[in-house]
Amino acid sequence: MSGCPYFQNRDVLFQSRLQQKNEEERDDSQEGTNKASKGGIIYGEYLQLDKIVAAQSLQSELKGNKIHDEHLFIVTHQAYELWFKQILWELDSVRDIFISGDARNGRNMLKVTTRTHRIITIFKLLVDQFAILETMTALDFFDFREYLSLASGFQSLQFRLLENKFGVSSDRRVYYNRQHYRDNFYGQDSELLLCSEQEPTLLRVVEQWLERTPGLEEKGFNFWGKLEANITEGLKREREKLEMRPESEDKDEQMKDFIKQRDLFTSLFDEQRHEDLMSKGERRLSYKALQGALMIYFYREEPRFQVPFQLLTSLMDIDSLMSKWRYHHVCMVHRMIGSKMGTGGSSGYHYLRSTVSDRYKVFVDLCNLATFLVPRHWVPKLNPTEDSFPSTDTCCDSSYCSNSSEDSD
Amino acid sequence: MSGCPYFQNRDVLFQSRLQQKNEEERDDSQEGTNKASKGGIIYGEYLQLDKIVAAQSLQSELKGNKIHDEHLFIVTHQAYELWFKQILWELDSVRDIFISGDARNGRNMLKVTTRTHRIITIFKLLVDQFAILETMTALDFFDFREYLSLASGFQSLQFRLLENKFGVSSDRRVYYNRQHYRDNFYGQDSELLLCSEQEPTLLRVVEQWLERTPGLEEKGFNFWGKLEANITEGLKREREKLEMRPESEDKDEQMKDFIKQRDLFTSLFDEQRHEDLMSKGERRLSYKALQGALMIYFYREEPRFQVPFQLLTSLMDIDSLMSKWRYHHVCMVHRMIGSKMGTGGSSGYHYLRSTVSDRYKVFVDLCNLATFLVPRHWVPKLNPTEDSFPSTDTCCDSSYCSNSSEDSD
Amino acid sequence: MSGCPYFQNRDVLFQSRLQQKNEEERDDSQEGTNKASKGGIIYGEYLQLDKIVAAQSLQSELKGNKIHDEHLFIVTHQAYELWFKQILWELDSVRDIFISGDARNGRNMLKVTTRTHRIITIFKLLVDQFAILETMTALDFFDFREYLSLASGFQSLQFRLLENKFGVSSDRRVYYNRQHYRDNFYGQDSELLLCSEQEPTLLRVVEQWLERTPGLEEKGFNFWGKLEANITEGLKREREKLEMRPESEDKDEQMKDFIKQRDLFTSLFDEQRHEDLMSKGERRLSYKALQGALMIYFYREEPRFQVPFQLLTSLMDIDSLMSKWRYHHVCMVHRMIGSKMGTGGSSGYHYLRSTVSDRYKVFVDLCNLATFLVPRHWVPKLNPTEDSFPSTDTCCDSSYCSNSSEDSD
Amino acid sequence: MSGCPYFQNRDVLFQSRLQQKNEEERDDSQEGTNKASKGGIIYGEYLQLDKIVAAQSLQSELKGNKIHDEHLFIVTHQAYELWFKQILWELDSVRDIFISGDARNGRNMLKVTTRTHRIITIFKLLVDQFAILETMTALDFFDFREYLSLASGFQSLQFRLLENKFGVSSDRRVYYNRQHYRDNFYGQDSELLLCSEQEPTLLRVVEQWLERTPGLEEKGFNFWGKLEANITEGLKREREKLEMRPESEDKDEQMKDFIKQRDLFTSLFDEQRHEDLMSKGERRLSYKALQGALMIYFYREEPRFQVPFQLLTSLMDIDSLMSKWRYHHVCMVHRMIGSKMGTGGSSGYHYLRSTVSDRYKVFVDLCNLATFLVPRHWVPKLNPTEDSFPSTDTCCDSSYCSNSSEDSD
Repeated sequence: MSGCPYFQNRDVLFQSRLQQKNEEERDDSQEGTNKASKGGIIYGEYLQLDKIVAAQSLQSELKGNKIHDEHLFIVTHQAYELWFKQILWELDSVRDIFISGDARNGRNMLKVTTRTHRIITIFKLLVDQFAILETMTALDFFDFREYLSLASGFQSLQFRLLENKFGVSSDRRVYYNRQHYRDNFYGQDSELLLCSEQEPTLLRVVEQWLERTPGLEEKGFNFWGKLEANITEGLKREREKLEMRPESEDKDEQMKDFIKQRDLFTSLFDEQRHEDLMSKGERRLSYKALQGALMIYFYREEPRFQVPFQLLTSLMDIDSLMSKWRYHHVCMVHRMIGSKMGTGGSSGYHYLRSTVSDRYKVFVDLCNLATFLVPRHWVPKLNPTEDSFPSTDTCCDSSYCSNSSEDSD
Repeated sequence: MSGCPYFQNRDVLFQSRLQQKNEEERDDSQEGTNKASKGGIIYGEYLQLDKIVAAQSLQSELKGNKIHDEHLFIVTHQAYELWFKQILWELDSVRDIFISGDARNGRNMLKVTTRTHRIITIFKLLVDQFAILETMTALDFFDFREYLSLASGFQSLQFRLLENKFGVSSDRRVYYNRQHYRDNFYGQDSELLLCSEQEPTLLRVVEQWLERTPGLEEKGFNFWGKLEANITEGLKREREKLEMRPESEDKDEQMKDFIKQRDLFTSLFDEQRHEDLMSKGERRLSYKALQGALMIYFYREEPRFQVPFQLLTSLMDIDSLMSKWRYHHVCMVHRMIGSKMGTGGSSGYHYLRSTVSDRYKVFVDLCNLATFLVPRHWVPKLNPTEDSFPSTDTCCDSSYCSNSSEDSD
Repeated sequence: MSGCPYFQNRDVLFQSRLQQKNEEERDDSQEGTNKASKGGIIYGEYLQLDKIVAAQSLQSELKGNKIHDEHLFIVTHQAYELWFKQILWELDSVRDIFISGDARNGRNMLKVTTRTHRIITIFKLLVDQFAILETMTALDFFDFREYLSLASGFQSLQFRLLENKFGVSSDRRVYYNRQHYRDNFYGQDSELLLCSEQEPTLLRVVEQWLERTPGLEEKGFNFWGKLEANITEGLKREREKLEMRPESEDKDEQMKDFIKQRDLFTSLFDEQRHEDLMSKGERRLSYKALQGALMIYFYREEPRFQVPFQLLTSLMDIDSLMSKWRYHHVCMVHRMIGSKMGTGGSSGYHYLRSTVSDRYKVFVDLCNLATFLVPRHWVPKLNPTEDSFPSTDTCCDSSYCSNSSEDSD
Repeated sequence: MSGCPYFQNRDVLFQSRLQQKNEEERDDSQEGTNKASKGGIIYGEYLQLDKIVAAQSLQSELKGNKIHDEHLFIVTHQAYELWFKQILWELDSVRDIFISGDARNGRNMLKVTTRTHRIITIFKLLVDQFAILETMTALDFFDFREYLSLASGFQSLQFRLLENKFGVSSDRRVYYNRQHYRDNFYGQDSELLLCSEQEPTLLRVVEQWLERTPGLEEKGFNFWGKLEANITEGLKREREKLEMRPESEDKDEQMKDFIKQRDLFTSLFDEQRHEDLMSKGERRLSYKALQGALMIYFYREEPRFQVPFQLLTSLMDIDSLMSKWRYHHVCMVHRMIGSKMGTGGSSGYHYLRSTVSDRYKVFVDLCNLATFLVPRHWVPKLNPTEDSFPSTDTCCDSSYCSNSSEDSD
């Protein structure tokens, strides 16, 4: 038992083992034999565990005052970054599928929804993952906080990329210590961020896809025109019914509600108003895309629209999960560092608090469409023989196709 | 197979079975035999499933337009109410233990932390439970929303009781449609709410318990006095060290930070300032209780303070979970009804949004104490022989004891 | 403050309030006025909270020894039963859609997947929900366990119905104390269970739907025939390649693997063997349905098969979640009552342990198909012009249609 | 926009950026300036993200057939390994505290329970984390499965270390392909595993701590002697009461139950029987430790025993979570590769299935003690003045203390 690491220094042994492994790796001959004898790559090599599991170096230990809980702090953040990488992987592939949108597109919708759903599943875990860091109290954190100096989660390149590629508007970002968010990054990081703002975001590729929803063509099914007519007619009849009732307080109340409702629908068909809201950032999807989304909502049970409807639901899920992630983050930070009550100056807590806002929501329009639902009998009827929709295979933007290659898998 | 309910109307059969059961229950003789033959109460009777499982009556069905998803809406809300009842059960018992605080108190701390931890576990489930209701889309909800008329989650008596008993300040509540929250309740419900405001809340009983933290006595260990002296001394030395550094931009920066820090600590020892913050509702615990909490923080590893420290952590957890519950609720409502973009008037969404605020947090002071942490060597040292704390058994308020009986379990 | 319930007996007041409410409800005039003044049904009435929240009566209290934790025990079980009711609601509606399968069927697939997904979401919560009951230790349970006498979760009618309707085979159930499971139920409960065994289960309706997968027709695309041919050809080539390699230990090894693989595929095309496995209960789906499932697997990206593929995945999810639920249940029971180590006789723990078994899995064949996957280039190619599948709208069994009415929503 | 990575190859850029960063790091001067200008370490460097986020290399891509989902497979396993490292970190520190158990021990119990609780929180996440990998279907996995050759989760060194250090008995491990588990590891890995078997496991250090539970001393409070006397007396009285009842079938039944119960308790006090069960591996804790555990159970409300009781509960939680982790793992593997139905030979599925067993439970005795609970009035009374327990500070084994240094934090 005397040769056992327990009675020596475990960490040293563990590190040296990993180091040795690194050296072994460079000794190809030896490795080769080893591999040959086993016929393939080994678990630890495959996962590059020599990197993953040896990347925890405590600042507190370097400064001569090793604090146990710093290890948790590092591992938790690394786990977040691993998953951010995975989300970016999925997000990029989904954007690629939309951008390269050629005739195979209908077939690709399964990939799109599966991968979107995977992003959702990851984000759910990331929200729950705060529970682990919360096992560290403010007092434990205080013991090594000073050693971290300026290192801050705000500097996570991957999280900013993720937000940008999803479609968070850089115009609407809250300033951090009076600085533009990108000014906190340097060199290639800053360039990568700029590019992620300029590339087609998920919001934009979905928008283009929605604009081509079959059935929107004015010369075809003309969904929007038919819907406006039906709503106008429906409202007219409701008003008539209402006016025939004997006078009463109740009637007045209902008339007020009716007018509110009517004004709301009038606003829906007012394109200028939409443009105004867009310029203020209160709407994010184009007028045409909004029409497409509402059409998918109303005809969601049509076989062609079932998967698109699932996708719209998933996009709202991601938005919702990202804002829950932000909120849980705020709650954790509040407990770690307090709200600096009594001091001036924007604190980390208050900055984070301000990002839990509809300003950071990307597909908020899809939620807000709930305001414009109408009774089923107001929805324009499909004539099964005439109004069958063209295949979704051909309804996607191909303007990016020139230099896009086929999705690699 | 022809006698089987599938080919008849299942629901009718199921309902009639339950009705029959009700009648059977009144037929004691028959029941008696049944019970006797089995020697005890049966699962379904014990749980009163005839009530629980027959309490779902769809308004849409009554109005002749049965909508499938209304069942989910009802069951989810009932599940919430069941758990609210359980939380109230635990909350009342915890308050009872504090209020009746006699000499057995040290022994009761296990119950207190166990039950507090149970409330936490329930709240975690309640936050996750929104996922179920979120499987219903805005469009599904729209189909039966009109039948619900005014029935609103705002009217949940149990949730308001829970908030009040926990310690949400009724002064700081957001108005709902320009009405005081209690004006939405009638008769005995309204009375119960008023009482719950007047009774000792969890905040108040914990406050009294904290005020008696052993070690606060000015003539004894005098924690507060010693702490102030140590901090003053510590800051003085830091300033001296700082002033000896050669002039530089960096030094100026650090001096500014130092002054901020010093002002912060000065504010901690300024009782008048504390009273001002309390009157504005920005602090909720008395000055003395705050001292007790900080003391438990600093000496949390003392055997006597380990369980109290766990309790303080749990209280922050509840606060945090309640606000997460509110936020997830907001997110769900947003998807169900939109934010009524374009219409005036406060919407359900905006009302709920405004309740996700520190105004509704009860133990926010415990979080904010994170601002006042100091290096370990500034914490007054305990003299192991002299400063051993008196037993916590005797440190609890007994002013309520006269008419309190022993905790029933 | 003296009139407040805290200083009286809260429970009594609360109960009497509810009772009064019951009486009020019978006083229609008064209620009517109240409703009129508010224009609709109130939250508490809508949810029948007078039933839900007053259905907790502690046996320990009735026996004069009120035990605090019994309340948790009751509420948790009631919450389970509420959700079981919801699952039955969804399960019945999904079975109805399949059974009434008329031409609108393609449109109904969204409902089928949405509701199946809802069942999944509920089951996830039910698995997590054990965490709440686990806040009660074995010692707390012991204090009131004797009062429950024979009431046991085994007697949950709804859970047995749920299993049966899903498709758990009553032949394969483990006996409980040497009794058939149904012998633990009486009167109408027993009848309901018998019916649920005789009705078309989810397994059976899905089986019939799978058997009609477009493309299985021998005179049409003839998926099965083509697949067998491709696999035979593929295996032949692999063998040839393998045989050309120089002799070595490695080659022998690979040849053994090859033969194992070949025998496996041979078994796949052996209908007699399938029937044998079915009679032993090791397979649950008909040979034809298995072919349909494999076809959906291979062509899952075809627009028509995307939603069916999601459904198959969801069915495996439910199976998996039900067995996780069983396993978490076992773990909880183990902690509550131990495994009665040292005593003879089957304990609750050992009974439950034996139900965590593939015997209770319904869609286990869908998992096991993973064994029969082949490289993509072995999958028969679709000829886009000739082999386009007929609409799924017409591929569903309508033999049950005669007396089925339209889905109510 | 033309300079943007989207239109080039993102991955290449990202990789090269990371590479450059590596080189930059070696250019100390430049880094130095950078650091100086910002005054500290940067987020990405602190977390060594150049290692973490660049450690995903797809075997399928190396083989020229990049499969999208392999990235998920890698990242998920890496996340598991990161958390395993953290669990080992906590587990080692908890063992250290017990082993170095000097007089400060009472104070260290907060650390012990906090860190144990942290392990629980991590394991909960790890159980949930399977949901992410489950978004990959068997078909997706099949596409790259062949490239992994022999790399298998079975080879996770950290997981085996974790099991060993926790106290999984290597004698009771299931063989894997007829091999001892350690024969799957080579070189230093194998040595580390051997050492982890020989070092004091968590089971052993807890056992020693339990053996010294104050109150067990035969010449002192003599808990075990008193308990045996009380139980003997209690059973005698119960038998007398039972015998006085008139003859009936019911009485016979109860007498049978009584005798079962009596035999059970007799077995509790039979040390020889305990040794026999231990040698068969059916009990894992020494007889004395079992007594200590039962004592903590019965007197859990004593201030000194509250935290120890929490610890025992946590140890059962870890056991329970590890077995849930195993079971969820099995479920996932079943879906990924099927159960190889129809083939002989032990499959991965069946191997994993066999590890979900009480054989792998470490603190199973703590669960099984639930069998030996007795009514509260049978528990020996504490005489408050005489039987106050000595301080827990002095009740811990110090035989390991010679070469142990103080816990580093």
